[in-house]
Amino acid sequence: MKKIINQPEDYIKEMLEGIYTAHSDKLAYVEDDMHCLVKRKRKQGKVGIATGGGSGHLPLFLGYVGEGMADGCSVGDVFQSPGANQMLAVTRAVDTGAGVLYIYGNYNGDIFNFDMAAEMADFEHDIRVESVIAGEDVASAAPSKPGEKSTRRGVAGIFFVYKCAGAAAEAMLPLDEVKRIAQKAADNVRTMGVALTPCTVPRVGRPGFHIADDEMEIGMGIHGETGIRRGRLETADKITEEMLGKIIEDLPYVEGDEVAVLVNGLGATPLDEQYIVVRRADALLKEKGLKVHRYYVGEYATSLEMAGVSVSLLKVDEELKKYIDAPADTPFFIQK
Amino acid sequence: MKKIINQPEDYIKEMLEGIYTAHSDKLAYVEDDMHCLVKRKRKQGKVGIATGGGSGHLPLFLGYVGEGMADGCSVGDVFQSPGANQMLAVTRAVDTGAGVLYIYGNYNGDIFNFDMAAEMADFEHDIRVESVIAGEDVASAAPSKPGEKSTRRGVAGIFFVYKCAGAAAEAMLPLDEVKRIAQKAADNVRTMGVALTPCTVPRVGRPGFHIADDEMEIGMGIHGETGIRRGRLETADKITEEMLGKIIEDLPYVEGDEVAVLVNGLGATPLDEQYIVVRRADALLKEKGLKVHRYYVGEYATSLEMAGVSVSLLKVDEELKKYIDAPADTPFFIQK
Repeated sequence: MKKIINQPEDYIKEMLEGIYTAHSDKLAYVEDDMHCLVKRKRKQGKVGIATGGGSGHLPLFLGYVGEGMADGCSVGDVFQSPGANQMLAVTRAVDTGAGVLYIYGNYNGDIFNFDMAAEMADFEHDIRVESVIAGEDVASAAPSKPGEKSTRRGVAGIFFVYKCAGAAAEAMLPLDEVKRIAQKAADNVRTMGVALTPCTVPRVGRPGFHIADDEMEIGMGIHGETGIRRGRLETADKITEEMLGKIIEDLPYVEGDEVAVLVNGLGATPLDEQYIVVRRADALLKEKGLKVHRYYVGEYATSLEMAGVSVSLLKVDEELKKYIDAPADTPFFIQK
Repeated sequence: MKKIINQPEDYIKEMLEGIYTAHSDKLAYVEDDMHCLVKRKRKQGKVGIATGGGSGHLPLFLGYVGEGMADGCSVGDVFQSPGANQMLAVTRAVDTGAGVLYIYGNYNGDIFNFDMAAEMADFEHDIRVESVIAGEDVASAAPSKPGEKSTRRGVAGIFFVYKCAGAAAEAMLPLDEVKRIAQKAADNVRTMGVALTPCTVPRVGRPGFHIADDEMEIGMGIHGETGIRRGRLETADKITEEMLGKIIEDLPYVEGDEVAVLVNGLGATPLDEQYIVVRRADALLKEKGLKVHRYYVGEYATSLEMAGVSVSLLKVDEELKKYIDAPADTPFFIQK
């Protein structure tokens, strides 16, 4: 295990100490627990947006706490859900009377704990909580049938859900409206990724899986969950075509649709390669008659030091464009 | 070689196509040459700031072209200087009558070409050009004696030089003043890095050096240049102590000094680890009686997929703090 760390069991504690040191002007924690991270300045009467999840994905999740995005985040250990009590503490801190929206990824541990936190917030503290779950990885499961719960994993596309919900809350819309807009973003985003190398959870000390020097795994999840196909490493163009093809046919995105595009590095992949993916994605989207409203490129949701990229599309209409284009200001994401 | 690319010889061309696709609102190129990158909106009468250098270091160098930073960048092949004619084309594009300041790293190829471009700009186009060279890697050479040319390599600390010079130019100061401020930043910044893994230049196809699974190289340059010591991988705290110790004694930074701090990931190192370095650096700086004005953390100057971090300190006074704190807006760096 080749990492710049001290004791593996101190990894999250020390990372959080660094976060609060570097961003003390913007971030704070509540209940004397560094895992309960909140925005320093919280606007009264605004719907609170709370998120959370396992660590190891920076800037996801805590990096999106700031103006025009989330208000608080409960921070779990690497790839592990935070506890319901931590979520409750964040919920209480970010509620300013207008209720709280939870936005998190579709993982069983997170669902269990966020549901419990929502119940406690309601029964014990009279805080109304609604939830929107991001689950947009087309490689992780077939689309759910109407009325069924989706089993699709949430990955980088959650960024778009934060962006839209955060801007709607900043516009002082009521909880039901913020939830509707978040759900609309969640319903219209799709993601697929490819991994070239594994990552190592510090406490475990060895890579989560093995992959040969000439192989890639298409559709791998951000904790190293199995994808849809393992095969020889292909060119950037072919990888982009495979990912984008599956994404486009899934929603489906059709000719004339407008989309926001996120090309996301999983950790170890240079920005150069991400832009090579942008280049092919742009040509493909044009071929399909899709119009790109805006690109986001960089590391938005990572898997420690995993090499790979993911592509996310969000279908936007005039309403979502307004929220996508609104300003945001977090320690890890600023948009003017 | 495990990369998401097409043909290695198309690497830079395709990366640049992606850059111009994603950032067409902010960036353009001149003379029909994608390697000659300029800011779309250029303010008349402002000192132009031009930079350039080899690729493989994104967001360095081209990522700092934007409001309050550089105006143009000549883009070389991976780890190779761009040509003097490309630098000249950028120079002509960014000159709006107030002259041009070159800011680049201390590498022979870049010096040769930028000097030639400056001469051509002066003789053929009557554009006054001044240069400030960033060379702050304390591991790369002993400090130069008065009157001697420094042989120290420029690494991540050039970010601070752009930041100060860019803000001074944005304030419409004349060329001599912008140069003085850039030189002041360059004189007061020091950097040191550590590498855990090598990187692979796409056209070469194999790693630039070998390093064992339990080793690190302290003081390695951003092209894989030899550092000052290879040894067993140590803890984050020990690595931080060694780097920061050498940096502090070099300027030297003394009790009561105020500094801006940049903790920079070299490519494959997760943000978590960078924040673990921040944590120890902050404690050490406090012990030494140094006051931190501001932290920057993330990937600011990389070496493709190299794992490692660097730490840079900039000693700031009231003047430099004003320029460090000024707003900036580039595709890769936004400060409000």
